Amino acid sequence: MALYVQKFGGTSVGSLERIEAVADRIARASRSGDKIVVVLSAMAGETNRLLNLAHSVAAEPDPRELDMLVSTGEQISISLMAMALHKRGISAQAILGDQAQILTNDHHGKARIQHVATDNLNNLLGLGIIPIVAGFQGRSESGQLTTLGRGGSDTTAVAIAAALKADECQIYTDVDGVYTTDPRVEPKARKMDFITFEEMMELSSLGAKVLQIRSVEYAGRYNVPLRVLSSFGDGEGTLIMYDQNSDKVPLVSGIAFNRDEASLTLVGVPDEANVAAQILTPISDSGIDVDMIVHTTTVAGCADFTFTVHRNDFSQAKALLSPVAKKLGAQHVKSDNGLCKVSVVGVGMKNHSGVASRMFQTLGQEGISVQLISTSEIKISVAIEEKYLELAVRSLHSAFDLAEKT
Amino acid sequence: MALYVQKFGGTSVGSLERIEAVADRIARASRSGDKIVVVLSAMAGETNRLLNLAHSVAAEPDPRELDMLVSTGEQISISLMAMALHKRGISAQAILGDQAQILTNDHHGKARIQHVATDNLNNLLGLGIIPIVAGFQGRSESGQLTTLGRGGSDTTAVAIAAALKADECQIYTDVDGVYTTDPRVEPKARKMDFITFEEMMELSSLGAKVLQIRSVEYAGRYNVPLRVLSSFGDGEGTLIMYDQNSDKVPLVSGIAFNRDEASLTLVGVPDEANVAAQILTPISDSGIDVDMIVHTTTVAGCADFTFTVHRNDFSQAKALLSPVAKKLGAQHVKSDNGLCKVSVVGVGMKNHSGVASRMFQTLGQEGISVQLISTSEIKISVAIEEKYLELAVRSLHSAFDLAEKT
Repeated sequence: MALYVQKFGGTSVGSLERIEAVADRIARASRSGDKIVVVLSAMAGETNRLLNLAHSVAAEPDPRELDMLVSTGEQISISLMAMALHKRGISAQAILGDQAQILTNDHHGKARIQHVATDNLNNLLGLGIIPIVAGFQGRSESGQLTTLGRGGSDTTAVAIAAALKADECQIYTDVDGVYTTDPRVEPKARKMDFITFEEMMELSSLGAKVLQIRSVEYAGRYNVPLRVLSSFGDGEGTLIMYDQNSDKVPLVSGIAFNRDEASLTLVGVPDEANVAAQILTPISDSGIDVDMIVHTTTVAGCADFTFTVHRNDFSQAKALLSPVAKKLGAQHVKSDNGLCKVSVVGVGMKNHSGVASRMFQTLGQEGISVQLISTSEIKISVAIEEKYLELAVRSLHSAFDLAEKT
Repeated sequence: MALYVQKFGGTSVGSLERIEAVADRIARASRSGDKIVVVLSAMAGETNRLLNLAHSVAAEPDPRELDMLVSTGEQISISLMAMALHKRGISAQAILGDQAQILTNDHHGKARIQHVATDNLNNLLGLGIIPIVAGFQGRSESGQLTTLGRGGSDTTAVAIAAALKADECQIYTDVDGVYTTDPRVEPKARKMDFITFEEMMELSSLGAKVLQIRSVEYAGRYNVPLRVLSSFGDGEGTLIMYDQNSDKVPLVSGIAFNRDEASLTLVGVPDEANVAAQILTPISDSGIDVDMIVHTTTVAGCADFTFTVHRNDFSQAKALLSPVAKKLGAQHVKSDNGLCKVSVVGVGMKNHSGVASRMFQTLGQEGISVQLISTSEIKISVAIEEKYLELAVRSLHSAFDLAEKT
């Protein structure tokens, strides 16, 4: 008899019909004899409806009150799911974050889980009752209702799975697993049966938005096997866990990409240690995320400094740069807001330097020039002109032999 | 400096515009230097929306899960109100039932408040923060979220006022006070400045649906002065408290009425002690409320037994009676589903027998025949044909001199 934590996202419980379908699935799993804990998101659209209400009242609603408002979304979906299970003769109880003893810090709107006590959940499981837990919410030590930020229901599920030492944390979503790349770009993309936590971290942060990165990090830290699967189909999905036999891992597991990138370059700034900080501080102080950063010494004592931001932040970042450029005596600011980022990811590349050369060779053969490069242990990213995105993804997918074997 | 508990009902917070208007009112009260605790209902319509959701999922939703579902309505209104007050520079915090330490028994859907601890609320008041408390909800000792039943927000307000020893519990509603009768029936109806708890209990149970009867009972028991006033206007409303100088009280304070009554009479049943129980047990076992009950001995050992029910329950009650009638050897069952009930209410009538005679004289002069009579210490009710309702109310209103003095 196994213990599974099953998390269903907003689209999976987006209507009463879908709630009924998910109830069927939970009832089947329960009747098979396994123990189940369910974690739910709000019905799709509900959180946005509540946020709109808040913003109609106040331009910048207090985060404490916003937490209290938006957490009602999950409270509604868990109550309805418990009712749908009762109708099927299944014992179930809707459980709020604090009833599930999810203790967080007090950073409203982006609280972190500090501890999950298991008394209440184990008690219910012992009585044969399925706990239907509200995702995304917890309570702080001072008794305040908190939320974990968007997508936080995944984190709730993983934290509960870790605390209960569940056999698997199953994230039901509207895709049937993690793919080698986006099938809308490369129809030959293949669903992976298995992927490591490290690879999933790189893939999810790079735009394969199947799982919240924080929940993957959490699952990795507590070694909770994580499975992504479809709430509509019957496949096995993709299992995310630590690499069990590193001999057989492929060099490259997947190709990720981000559209809508923009780059900014300060040409001819002093080649000094504190220049990067002077350039980036005003950018990050304005809440703009910086992605790739490249620094190149051109002539002695002189350097070019380049970084990328999301295209939406491009104008603001450019405006923020101009006083800095003047102060640093830069020759000029070069900019390009027509870029994208393509990354190859794989734990196998740790021990193999050939990946980078094959990547550049492939792109070169297609006449795609690389504007920027950044690398990590298991990832190589390049910024290229956005018009080449699909071509780059498809040619890399093929070069690293990722398609379904026929 | 006074301490007021101010409760705003569903229509008072029924839209974002109304929430803003109520926030203005609370801000004014707060700036005047008084300490305020606010209790809110759900936005009008929201509770019904949630109930409809529940009933789409299950014909008879579990009361525990239903409590968790419908309590989100108040959670939404308190969060929005706190935001609206922040916008006005007022310190306020939305407070859930359990955060306000409202301990109830575990009768889901109709829980009773057992205790209100004041630590959290007093702490907030001490910090100059207005607590915006979710009405209608509490927590049981075992940590379950409970609701007090419809209209329970009034009870929440009174319970908090009692626990905090507030100077007044102010119930803001869409009427500007308690009237001598329904102004839609008698345009000369007069708003009362003052009424006793006992009178209000009789008036609210009889259909002047301004306040929940349970909250009036609670206020009376803990001697909390209760004021009903309009959330839209600026009047003083009606103050409900114990009679301070009983010399000046009027004989009759108001005329209440209920439409849609029906009567059922078993003619010729044995005049024995256990007959009433045999007749009424199947009725009450089916959840049908019985109102007036009259038992008349006709000839020796023989009696007629009459009771009234709401017209909606008439057919079911009649069907339930026929086996009982057969068993008791009744001659036949007489029924009338075209009745209404009119009551005169007033603490002054305790010491004055003339009220009944003036009432019957008045009705007789108008040619209205009385079908049934029931009396309590401060109330006389009659069942009459419904077509005479308006005439009866207006003539009694005039006979007891209740109209505004000009």
